[in-house]
Amino acid sequence: MAETKLQRQNKLTVLTNPKLTEAAAIIEKAFVQRRTLIVAGKCSVRYTGRAKSTLEPGERILIIKEDGSLLVHRPVGYEPVNWQPPGSIFHVQTKADSIEVHAVRQKPRESVRVTFDKVFMVSALSLVDSGEFSLYASEQDMHRAILLKPSLLEEGFKPISYEKKVEPGFVDVYGVDKNGKLVVVEVKRKTAGKEAVLQLAKYIDAIKSKADRELRGVLVAPSLGKDVQRLLVTLGLEFKALDPKKCAKVLKKTETTKLEKFFEGKHE
Amino acid sequence: MAETKLQRQNKLTVLTNPKLTEAAAIIEKAFVQRRTLIVAGKCSVRYTGRAKSTLEPGERILIIKEDGSLLVHRPVGYEPVNWQPPGSIFHVQTKADSIEVHAVRQKPRESVRVTFDKVFMVSALSLVDSGEFSLYASEQDMHRAILLKPSLLEEGFKPISYEKKVEPGFVDVYGVDKNGKLVVVEVKRKTAGKEAVLQLAKYIDAIKSKADRELRGVLVAPSLGKDVQRLLVTLGLEFKALDPKKCAKVLKKTETTKLEKFFEGKHE
Repeated sequence: MAETKLQRQNKLTVLTNPKLTEAAAIIEKAFVQRRTLIVAGKCSVRYTGRAKSTLEPGERILIIKEDGSLLVHRPVGYEPVNWQPPGSIFHVQTKADSIEVHAVRQKPRESVRVTFDKVFMVSALSLVDSGEFSLYASEQDMHRAILLKPSLLEEGFKPISYEKKVEPGFVDVYGVDKNGKLVVVEVKRKTAGKEAVLQLAKYIDAIKSKADRELRGVLVAPSLGKDVQRLLVTLGLEFKALDPKKCAKVLKKTETTKLEKFFEGKHE
Repeated sequence: MAETKLQRQNKLTVLTNPKLTEAAAIIEKAFVQRRTLIVAGKCSVRYTGRAKSTLEPGERILIIKEDGSLLVHRPVGYEPVNWQPPGSIFHVQTKADSIEVHAVRQKPRESVRVTFDKVFMVSALSLVDSGEFSLYASEQDMHRAILLKPSLLEEGFKPISYEKKVEPGFVDVYGVDKNGKLVVVEVKRKTAGKEAVLQLAKYIDAIKSKADRELRGVLVAPSLGKDVQRLLVTLGLEFKALDPKKCAKVLKKTETTKLEKFFEGKHE
């Protein structure tokens, strides 16, 4: 243990190449103090719950957060190989040549056991984080989100084109509903006012003369301005509430298909 | 920098409370050497790609793996607040009072910028992990997976009961298909042999006399034994391939709804 470094502060405890008993002590203290724990080492993992899984020994990173959530990360891949949502109860046990970290949840009964026979680093941190997370999508991002996931507009909607030139301008999204009616969609990323309604009405008028079937106009926006509802109804148009944040997530989602599939249990 | 500890080994580099320039040097070297990097510190995050997001300053853990995947974890919650799949290219830049870690992907163009104005710990690790991950589901787990997600059997299937007593034993899963036909399901977790087929045939015979409508028998197993297909067809039964691992993931999935929703962009 010649190279072991022990450093304690309010913020941070780090121990490199500790003895297993030393690592266990840090881990136990982190549980009691509800600090965020990072352990890098050689471990195997067993999960028992609704299903069962085993992970043979290898070098990984275990993260246990102050809220009792758990992640085991292998050196490759962005998905955790094992994970538990917040609310687990943790124990650490020192065996002859290993330490076992147990995470147990009651509802439903689930248990994750991470057995380390070597610890390279153990770190306990007190982290303070109240920073706000904001997702942003432009109006064009909202168009693309609807194209990628048409059910954002409504079930059965099939987009035909977007940013389609229709005098006096461009129709945001253009498609067919589940009943075969044409749908003209006008998208706003903020509360939609009278101007947006009138703009949509103009497009509907311009297309109506050429359309061979029934036509619907849908105004898409996070909310509708005061007194706009009446105008909308008078003009025979519809409103669909859609938050740009939701669109941003749909767009981001398309980048993370693999991860989703992992969590949906669709891989392999 | 009185408390800074520097330790280098093949396996592990750890620096606590480093100067920003020191942290940047470790980070840069980890990129070059393709090591797994863990940085704990106060940071803000910007993501630009199909959508945009910002995360205000707070104390978090950044993990960058050897394959170029990236995770930013807040001190609570098991989902990362920002993440990128493998394949990013990384840079680190030292500014007057911060360091910026850039991750850029080309297809599609996406960029994550993590700006640290304080680093509590930086760690670069060379991790070796070839351990196999195995998921296990019992036959009963498979029953429950089908109940939870009936589309595992087929689209439109509606389970009525399971482990239903029918002389000469118990029917595994019992339900109605999309055309209103009764479906009797026999589940095996390994390759199904003649015995399984005959067992299902017996149940079908026993129920047929009481059933008021058409009856289907479906044998569910990861695979069908040699020469069993012919017997199955002769008896008018069907086979549906289903892997216990897939069932295990469906069961595990029900535990991680929140996480899925997060990755599906359904939260908030």
